[in-house]
Amino acid sequence: MRAPDAPDLYEGLITTRAIRRYRPDDIPDDDLCKILFAATRGPSGHNTQPFRFLVLRRDPDAAEARSILGEGFREAWAPNRVEPADDDLSRPARMARTMNEFVDSIAEAPVIVFACFRSAGQRGDISAGASVYPACQNLLLAARALGYGGVMTQWHRPVSDQLEPALGLPDGVSIVNTIPLGRPVGSHGPVRRLPLEDLVFEGRYGSPASWARDPEGTRYTGG
Amino acid sequence: MRAPDAPDLYEGLITTRAIRRYRPDDIPDDDLCKILFAATRGPSGHNTQPFRFLVLRRDPDAAEARSILGEGFREAWAPNRVEPADDDLSRPARMARTMNEFVDSIAEAPVIVFACFRSAGQRGDISAGASVYPACQNLLLAARALGYGGVMTQWHRPVSDQLEPALGLPDGVSIVNTIPLGRPVGSHGPVRRLPLEDLVFEGRYGSPASWARDPEGTRYTGG
Repeated sequence: MRAPDAPDLYEGLITTRAIRRYRPDDIPDDDLCKILFAATRGPSGHNTQPFRFLVLRRDPDAAEARSILGEGFREAWAPNRVEPADDDLSRPARMARTMNEFVDSIAEAPVIVFACFRSAGQRGDISAGASVYPACQNLLLAARALGYGGVMTQWHRPVSDQLEPALGLPDGVSIVNTIPLGRPVGSHGPVRRLPLEDLVFEGRYGSPASWARDPEGTRYTGG
Repeated sequence: MRAPDAPDLYEGLITTRAIRRYRPDDIPDDDLCKILFAATRGPSGHNTQPFRFLVLRRDPDAAEARSILGEGFREAWAPNRVEPADDDLSRPARMARTMNEFVDSIAEAPVIVFACFRSAGQRGDISAGASVYPACQNLLLAARALGYGGVMTQWHRPVSDQLEPALGLPDGVSIVNTIPLGRPVGSHGPVRRLPLEDLVFEGRYGSPASWARDPEGTRYTGG
């Protein structure tokens, strides 16, 4: 099921970006299986595999969790919500429209994946994330390889007290990422980051790495 | 500089595994630049890019940090160290030999990358990892794409009190991963994980996803 325009590994890494708008098409079983298989090939400390993936599709069983998530999203976004004028085509205005639409429609994404973490007495500090977020990145990259897109979010957080019991999460397991997936609407924009000289050092923190230069045509974040 | 056997994106995701033994070859500037560029294309919350990558190569400036790291590794590994009999070819024996060799030689890996996190007042809990470990996974996948390999480790931890000042880390920045990189020695074994039915659920935690089936020939972890 490789998408006709599937990139090679390196090209895929540097062009995959957050996708927040989805066509209504469902993701067929075979593709979903491949996406989750790739996610679970992610590394974890001592190969303990504390990651679990709980998938919501569009059947009635998923309705309650989707509804909790949708309400939570809208409430959490309300304070940030701005409605740009129709003729405002600036980047912030376009981002605001994308975010509003994302928040209003996210609970209806074709597929929603909850990445869960089984803590099993481990520290819950940032380093525990090394055993679950690489798998989430694999998931997004595999989606891209098959013609889909998604985005890592923390938007379960405002509603996790309702959501986790509704999803039957046992003690010691929590949701650590909420990833909607679907076929992208529109074209992918460029991946924008800070210049490499701000992000990569050699020998000592802050010391420039002479070899670390952005390829020509690289697009940066503002500022 | 694409390696002749560079896989496509999907194939790369499902076959990349931890590489702990390296040939002595250095990594040329261009390849190292491409690897770090791919790392920094990783996602982060609100595209805040709190990740920074500090690279050690083989010049004299890197000697002190490499020495601290090497001692730390050997001390931390000492309680786990076993020396299998020469004729013991079991998987645990092979793993023990690989780990002993890794610990003894890791500080001399051609390149060592410290993934650092600028906390800037953010929570340091597991979810902060969503803004740095996807970039680390990109780094390992990019290395793979170019014919190199590496492994995420937390082995800076026992020596971070010495290492972070020696590397000039400012307040609010800490090392969250230590990734040695180089050309792999020998062939890659298979990626082994639990069966998908243990890792992927649908609708409710623990409920099987009928479509989640391991491809034929999948190798599992023991037990």
